[in-house]
Parts: sequence; C-alpha cells; structure tokens
Amino acid sequence: MARLAGGRRWLPRLPILDWGRRYDRATLMEDGVAALIVTVMLIPQSLAYALLAGLPPEVGLYASVAPLLLYAVFGSSRVLAVGPVAVVSLMTAAAIGQSAQAGSAAYWTAAITLAFLSGAMLLLMGLLKLGFLANFLSHPVISGFISASGLLIAISQLKSLMGVKAEGDNALDLLLALLHQAPDTHLVTLGIGVVTAAFLFWVRRGLNPLLRGWGLGRLAADVVAKAAPVAAIAITTGLTWAFGWHTQGVKIVGSIPQGLPPLTMPSWDLALWQQLWMPALLISIVGFVESVSVGQTLAARRRQRIEPDQELVALGACNLSASFTGGFPVTGSFGRSAVNSDAGAKTPAAGAYTALGITLVTLFLTPALFFLPQATLAATIIVAVLSLVDFGIFKRTWAYSKPDFAAVAATLVATLALGVESGLVVGVGVSLALYVYRTSRPHIAQVGLVRGTEHFRNVLRHKVAQSPRLVSLRVDESLYFANARALEDRVNEAVASHPQLQHLVLLCSAINHIDASALESLEAIEQRLHDAGARLHLSEVKGPVMDRLLRTTFLRHLSGQVFLTHYQAVVALTPEVVGVPAAAAD
Amino acid sequence: MARLAGGRRWLPRLPILDWGRRYDRATLMEDGVAALIVTVMLIPQSLAYALLAGLPPEVGLYASVAPLLLYAVFGSSRVLAVGPVAVVSLMTAAAIGQSAQAGSAAYWTAAITLAFLSGAMLLLMGLLKLGFLANFLSHPVISGFISASGLLIAISQLKSLMGVKAEGDNALDLLLALLHQAPDTHLVTLGIGVVTAAFLFWVRRGLNPLLRGWGLGRLAADVVAKAAPVAAIAITTGLTWAFGWHTQGVKIVGSIPQGLPPLTMPSWDLALWQQLWMPALLISIVGFVESVSVGQTLAARRRQRIEPDQELVALGACNLSASFTGGFPVTGSFGRSAVNSDAGAKTPAAGAYTALGITLVTLFLTPALFFLPQATLAATIIVAVLSLVDFGIFKRTWAYSKPDFAAVAATLVATLALGVESGLVVGVGVSLALYVYRTSRPHIAQVGLVRGTEHFRNVLRHKVAQSPRLVSLRVDESLYFANARALEDRVNEAVASHPQLQHLVLLCSAINHIDASALESLEAIEQRLHDAGARLHLSEVKGPVMDRLLRTTFLRHLSGQVFLTHYQAVVALTPEVVGVPAAAAD
Repeated sequence: MARLAGGRRWLPRLPILDWGRRYDRATLMEDGVAALIVTVMLIPQSLAYALLAGLPPEVGLYASVAPLLLYAVFGSSRVLAVGPVAVVSLMTAAAIGQSAQAGSAAYWTAAITLAFLSGAMLLLMGLLKLGFLANFLSHPVISGFISASGLLIAISQLKSLMGVKAEGDNALDLLLALLHQAPDTHLVTLGIGVVTAAFLFWVRRGLNPLLRGWGLGRLAADVVAKAAPVAAIAITTGLTWAFGWHTQGVKIVGSIPQGLPPLTMPSWDLALWQQLWMPALLISIVGFVESVSVGQTLAARRRQRIEPDQELVALGACNLSASFTGGFPVTGSFGRSAVNSDAGAKTPAAGAYTALGITLVTLFLTPALFFLPQATLAATIIVAVLSLVDFGIFKRTWAYSKPDFAAVAATLVATLALGVESGLVVGVGVSLALYVYRTSRPHIAQVGLVRGTEHFRNVLRHKVAQSPRLVSLRVDESLYFANARALEDRVNEAVASHPQLQHLVLLCSAINHIDASALESLEAIEQRLHDAGARLHLSEVKGPVMDRLLRTTFLRHLSGQVFLTHYQAVVALTPEVVGVPAAAAD
Repeated sequence: MARLAGGRRWLPRLPILDWGRRYDRATLMEDGVAALIVTVMLIPQSLAYALLAGLPPEVGLYASVAPLLLYAVFGSSRVLAVGPVAVVSLMTAAAIGQSAQAGSAAYWTAAITLAFLSGAMLLLMGLLKLGFLANFLSHPVISGFISASGLLIAISQLKSLMGVKAEGDNALDLLLALLHQAPDTHLVTLGIGVVTAAFLFWVRRGLNPLLRGWGLGRLAADVVAKAAPVAAIAITTGLTWAFGWHTQGVKIVGSIPQGLPPLTMPSWDLALWQQLWMPALLISIVGFVESVSVGQTLAARRRQRIEPDQELVALGACNLSASFTGGFPVTGSFGRSAVNSDAGAKTPAAGAYTALGITLVTLFLTPALFFLPQATLAATIIVAVLSLVDFGIFKRTWAYSKPDFAAVAATLVATLALGVESGLVVGVGVSLALYVYRTSRPHIAQVGLVRGTEHFRNVLRHKVAQSPRLVSLRVDESLYFANARALEDRVNEAVASHPQLQHLVLLCSAINHIDASALESLEAIEQRLHDAGARLHLSEVKGPVMDRLLRTTFLRHLSGQVFLTHYQAVVALTPEVVGVPAAAAD
C-alpha cells in the first residue's frame, strides 16, 4: 500500500491545492447541497455517538467541526465524510472506561488525550508510509469485529431505551445486568424508544419505496429518508416539552452549552498515556481501515484514486484537531460518505460546509435540544448499528474456506466475550496463525508424464508414465522455514519407498521464494539423497529464485542439474519413459 | 510433519518390537563398543551440564540412566544418544533460577518438576501429532539461538574458571560482574581451568591428525580424542588430591552420593507450574528440534527414517522418567549421537548399555570424583559449547537474504541481552513477522506478449507487445488478506493510468490459494472495473483454486471470462496484438 506507481513515493501534501484551483460556482452549489444533507444526518449522529462514548452530547458536535475542516485540506478522497462513527465511539468508551468515571471531567480529558494519541499515531504512520499495516486486518476479522461491535452497541443502548442503569464489559454481562434491571423499566421511556426505533426501521425499509411510488426522484426520496432521524428528534423533543415527560422520569439531553468548540489540551500524564496507547493504536487502525475501505469504494466509482498514506496524514490531522477543540476520536463514516457521494459532492469543500452547518448548530440550536429524550438517540443508534451486523459472512466463509470461517467466528466470539480490544487482537492473531499454519502444510504432489504430451500430473489422480528410478515432486507453495521440513519428510519418504531411486526432480514452477531455512533443507535433502546414492535435480525454477540461488554455493554442490522444463529433465534422465533412446535425449 | 506417507497416521508404538526381534550377538558387540565410547564421553558431560543447570553433579548422572532406557524402548532413531545437553541445561538454569535458590532442595524439586512438565507436554504433542509446531523455529532462529546460548554458557563458566562468584541474567551483566570480580581471581583455579581448556582445544584440533599421522585408524584416533576429557578429569583430580589444592581454595566437586538414582516426585504446586509451564514448553520445543535434526541427519545416512511424532512420544517418556528418578530435562545430544553412530551403534540397545555404564559409575566410581576441580568441568563445558557458536551464519544469510539475516541477528541479540526464553520468543516472532511482511508485498508484474511466441514477460524488463485496451497483471504470490489490498491498489493504478482500458486479465499461475479476504478484494476489483467500464478476466487458474471459486457466486458475476492460458485470453480480447483477425480468435 505504501509503494505506489512503480516505487514513486508521496510526501505528505495538500490535495486542496489540486481541486481548490479549479473551484467554481457550479461545484460550490453541488457541494453545498450535499453538505446540507450530511449536516442533517450528522446532528443526531454526533450527539448519539458522543453519548455512546460516555461523553456529553456537545462533544459530538465539537468533533464534527475542526476535523472536517482539516480533512478538506489534507484528505485525498473527494467525498469522505469525517466525524464521530459508531464503532470508534464504542472503542473510545471501552478504552477510557477503565481510566475514568463516565461523565467526569477526567473522562473527557481522557477522550481528548485518546484523540491526540490516535492522531499522532496516524500522522506518524502516514509519514513513515505504514499504511500497509492495515492490511493485516483481514476481511473476515473486520467483518466479525464490525458485526460484534454492532451487537455490543445495540445491547449497550438497550439500557437507555429501558430507562435503567446497567454496566458490563462484555455482551453477556450487559445482558444479565439488563435482565436484572428489567422490572425497573421506565415505561414512558421504553415507549418513546420503541416507537422511535419502529418508525426509523419503517423509514428505512418502507418509506423510501413508498415515496418512489409517489413519483419522487431517487435523490429526493433518499433525502427525506435520511432526514427521518431529525424528524424523530423534533417530534419526540416537542412531545416531551408539551407533556412534561421529563418530570415523569424520562431522561433528557438537557442543557448543552452554546458557542464555538472550546480550545482544549490533551493530558501530558505519562501514566494515562501508558493506559491509552494500545487502545489508541487499535482505534487508529480500525478507523483507518473503515475510512480507506469506503474511500476506495467511492473513489473507484468516479475513476479516482485515494492515497492510503495521505489518508493516514489527513486522519492524523483530523484527530489532532479534535483533541485541541474538545472532541474525541473521529474517522470516515460509511453511511455519511455514501450519502455525501450520492448527493453529488464534488470536492472535500463539502466537508467544510458541513463543519459550518454544525458550527451554526452549536451557536444557535442547542437550546432546542434541551428536551430531547435520550431514548430517541438510543433508538437512532440501534437502528444505525444493526445494519452493520452481517451474519451472512458466516455462511459465505463456511462455504468458501473453513479457516476464514474460524477467523470470523473467533473474532466475533472474542469481541462479544472479551470486549472490542481483545476481540481485535484475537482476530488478527487467529487469522495470521491460520495463514501460517496453512502455508506450513504445502500441497506436494508426485507427478508423472501424461503419455503423448509434455504435461505432468499427480500420480494419484491420473494415469501417467514414470520410472522407478526417478521421482518427480511438485511443491505448490513457496518454501520457507515452516514448511521446509515437510518437504524433507516427503523426500525421505520417497527415498524409503523407492529402493531403485537414482533421481529426484523438484518441479519448482509454483515456488516464489526459498528462504535460508528452506535452502538448508534443500542442502540436507541433497546430502541425504547423495548418501542414499541418488541425485537431486530442479526444474522450472523462477528467475528471481534462481538469481538468489546463484548467490550461494548450493548450485555448485548440486549433484544433479537444473532443467528449464520438467519435460527436459525426464527426457534427459529417464528416456525410457518418453520412449526416446538415451542418445537422443537433451 | 505429522502427516506421513499419504495421510497414514501413526499410533504411539514400540519400535523396540521391530529391531528387538532380530537382535543377535554381532549387533550386541557393535552396540556394546559404541556404548562404551559414549559412556566415556557422557561421564564428564553429565556432571558438567548438571552444574551448568545449577544442580548437584550427581543429578547429571541420574538424568543419564532411566531416560536412556526409555528411549531404547520408544525411540524411532537407531543411534540417538539421549541425556543432558548444554543448551537445555542452560534453559533449565534460566527457568528455575527465578523460582528457587541454586543449590537448595526447592531448586532440585523445581528441576524435577520442569522435567515432568516438559515430558508431559512432549508426550501430549506426540499423541496429538503436533510435531509440526517445531517447524516454526526457523534455521536462522535456531542458529542464532544456539550460537547465543553457546556464548552465554561459555561466559557463565568463566566464573568457575576464575574461582569467583558472578550472577547475571544476560551476557552483559555477567561480563560486568566478572570484570568487577577479576581482582579476586583464584590463580591456582584459573591455572587448572586454562591448562585444561588449552589441552582440550589441542586434542580437538591437533591430536587427532597427529594420531592419524602415527598410523592410527580413524575410529581409534576418534576414540582417543573423545576420551581426552576423561583424561583431563583423571589428571586434575589426581593432582588436586596429591597437592591438596582444595585446601588452597580450589573448589572441588566433593562428596557425590553413591547408589542408584533415587525415586522422586515432581511438585504438584500449581503456583510453581504456572511459573514453569512456559519455560517447559520452550525447552520441549528446543529439545525436540535438536533431537529430530540430529536424528534425521544420522538416519538418512543409513537410508532409515525417524518418525517425528514417535520421537515426541519417546522424548516425553524420557523426560517423565527423568522426573521420577531425580533427573532434569534431557534430549538427544548432537555430539554423542554422532559419536554413537560413527562408533557403529546398530540399535537403540546401545543407549541401554550406556545407561548400564552410567549406573556402574553411580554405584562405584563417585568417590573417585571427590577431588575433581569444578574448573576442570567448566573448561570441558567451554570447549564443548564454543563449537556450537557459528558466526558464519551471519555471512551466509547476509549474502542470501536480508530478512533471514535480520532473524538471526534479532535472535542472537535478544538471547544475549534478554536471556534464552525471551530470545527464542523474539526470534520466532521476528521470523514470522518478516515472512508475513514479505508475502504482504507480492511481486505484481504487468506483462506483455513476447512477439512470435506465446510467452508473456514483464513490460518493464522486456520489449513486448500490448494493447492500450488490455492490461495483463501477473501476481507472484498466493492472494490472502495481507496482500489483497496491494492487488486492489495495483489495479486502481492500472485503471487510472490506462484511460482506454477495457480488459484487465489476472494471470494466476503462481497463485496457490485465494482466501475469503482476497475473494472480496477480487469482487471489489470486479466492481470498480465495472464502474470504470472495463471487465475483469482470469487466466491459468490452478485446479484447487478453481474448485474453490466454483463454490462461490464470484465466477457467475464475473463480467469477463476465465481462460485456460493467458495467450488464449489475449488472442480473444485483443487479436490486434497477436496480428490475428478477430474472427479467428477463440
């Protein structure tokens, strides 16, 4: 990922200089419309994700201003919508929940510090071109992790929906705590939450087709559907105000300070940094992967490219800015970026206009949110995150590959049972271990000549010609330390089972590398064959592998030859198999 | 390693039943001679390695009786000589040094418990066919680890040579402690040690050729050379007794209890087990690797085979028996096995006769060892372990492959600086990380047609024909999660740099697997190409990869085709490149 376009390396740069120069009024209009729609989506999401992270709602608004401006300057995607997102907010809650009490000033400071550390790491990874690190999160791990996070978030929001208190680090603890609290459910709160959730589900599934049926355009129908959460907020806030539900125990958002995001500083307490660096790293990687995935998908539709290392720099700048303006960790959002793109955003300026929209909200609209029930926000979150849960991945990976299935299952179970950070670490560990395990047991086939051709096939599957004096082995894997001994075993077995053996030919067409361990194994094989009175030959060795072998003494000591094709080897060594007299061989 | 001979699986069995049935007088004589020579080597080694492990010298003798008998019953190698070895003794010292004071009864119990845990693990690994786990210790890691251990052992013995006390967990601490103690060096002790070491070095380098020059046979010369440590012991013991050096401060071995190995029990203290399980696992793996390496090498010379999983069972039995007879962890010895083989041992009965020889020593000869100076044993160890140190591996791996060099260097430095256990863990971690890192950056070449042939070559290196409408990419690595995104990047780049692109063909001849992540990447590539108005084709897909793809919907949704050969693809899609009219293509 860090190496692009034939080794060309990108210094951090300002993509704004590219598109900013050609910015015109038409683009301004298109970006403006997209920004308006995204702002309407972002208002409830920013409040809700801040609450999910255990922070006051205004922190979500603060995290939706400066980062968006910074992304407009540094980002390489034209349409990525940065800001608070569900999974990163959950990870934030998990990270700081251990260091401070939710709601305390120390908790907010920890969130700011987490954003600072995450931003610094992203920036550093970008400058060091470490974007490839994200590749070690496999699709099954990401999929299992996102699904499990979605479930965890949904479960964690049930308490707000029920109007009870429940704490727990993992899914089971949370569910048990909720069951324990079920008798104390606050019925008005539950009513608000359930009706809101049902309304939002209906909007998602039923309203859009209905509007289209009424003759609305696709975009217009989409805009109406995306505005539904805002409508739900307006209605439930109005009803709470009108009927005084808050006096009956319905929890409301309450007073949100008016004004611009504050200037803040991360904590420089090293003990806090020690607690937060690992979560910050995981948040950085998850946020980067989420951002790059959606960025790449949307860029490809327009035949554009994003630069992963530039994205690291941009996300680093976003998170650093969040930490200095009272925010918490942010990244590119799947949902809002897709809406931004569909709504016709042409440049990252759309993000800057969204930031402007949120600024206006923080300046003038927060008093209107005083009566907003927390249950409404919980319902918004639940509906949003349940769309992240994808159980189809189990079926697909089971059908395709059991190791991939195991990676999904391990990640999902570990995330639900041990929490987001352990889940991610377990997932990466399991997927790497399974990969290495698979390559450690290479497919090694004994092959023979298909009569009348120059092709060689597995002797167990095909009727082929071979001599008891010669064994041909084809290894379908690069040779390295973990599988070198498997080849030694296979050769030992061939020696033991072929008493007349004179020649062993390794067919190397699928070998992309031979590491030092495998080279020593080849030397050991050569030695053992020699002791057993047989010779070792190679055929169809790839250029780069041959170049490297030429730098060693192996080929000089090799008792046999290196043949360009396997057919040449068999013709030269056992002409009787091909039916050619020995003199004609070579 | 666990899968042998076409999936045949071995139950633990008794190899003694194979060779025991055909045992005759001639074999008895041959085994007896070999056993005599190995016994002479083993006496000083067993005493010395027990001291190296921080245990009383007799423990080395105890560990050289029961394990040898058990190996004769269960072992699959005909010539492996089991017993105390240098590296495992060092690891034992490192493992128990943290739990108990050297010389205390608790220390010995910990050593017994370590042998028990290691034996149980080896047995379990053997029954579960987990022998392949040893494959994850690469040759560079083993090499770096053995060299570093040799240096550590040699440095740790300097204190006995100098007659001072010095403690330290790593090489640097030890050297500093020795420098600090240098003024207190006991000169007589140093004299004994240095003269013995010089004598042993001379025997190794100079005596053997001298004897051969005098007309002695190779075997006879070898036997004399191998007996040199015993001669050194006899001479220095005699001189110490004669001159009363022990009264001048020369430390002697002292009273060794006479009699058969005692019956002992491991500790069942769970806290101790918690401290020892990780070292026990590392000792098991290192011991197994050392044992299997030498066993395989020696077996191959005779066209015999050893069975790795049977070796696990045998070594497990050996270590369990050591723990019940007052011993400490044992494994197959490089040096003694080679001597055993050269001296003509035909069956594992030679090991049983060696056990008998050591039993006679424990019964009758221990009083003769009273005046044996510890400096003599230290000199024996130093000369033995310095032969393990191989700095040539640095030069060889540097020339062959930088990642392998990095693995050797990391293991060596970590072992010297952090100790044996951390060194091994760092080595395995670094070598796996480097392997995964390398496969995560696959070689992807854009290829074109070599005119007049059906061969395709890298466009950057060769003058080839291609159409601006078609890009051919050859990936020289199996596709999996860590490199899937690299392919996506490469394709995105191709799309961006070829405005006329209509077809992208992936040449899959070197792809041995495609995991679920890579499949999703291929689907994303297909989608992006579709959005960009181009089609994705595959060529030369291997059978097993194709089988798996057929289980998914990928091929059904594929906008392009799957071609048997890459040439067919180019002929069909861009006939103008080949110079064939479109109608002739297929």
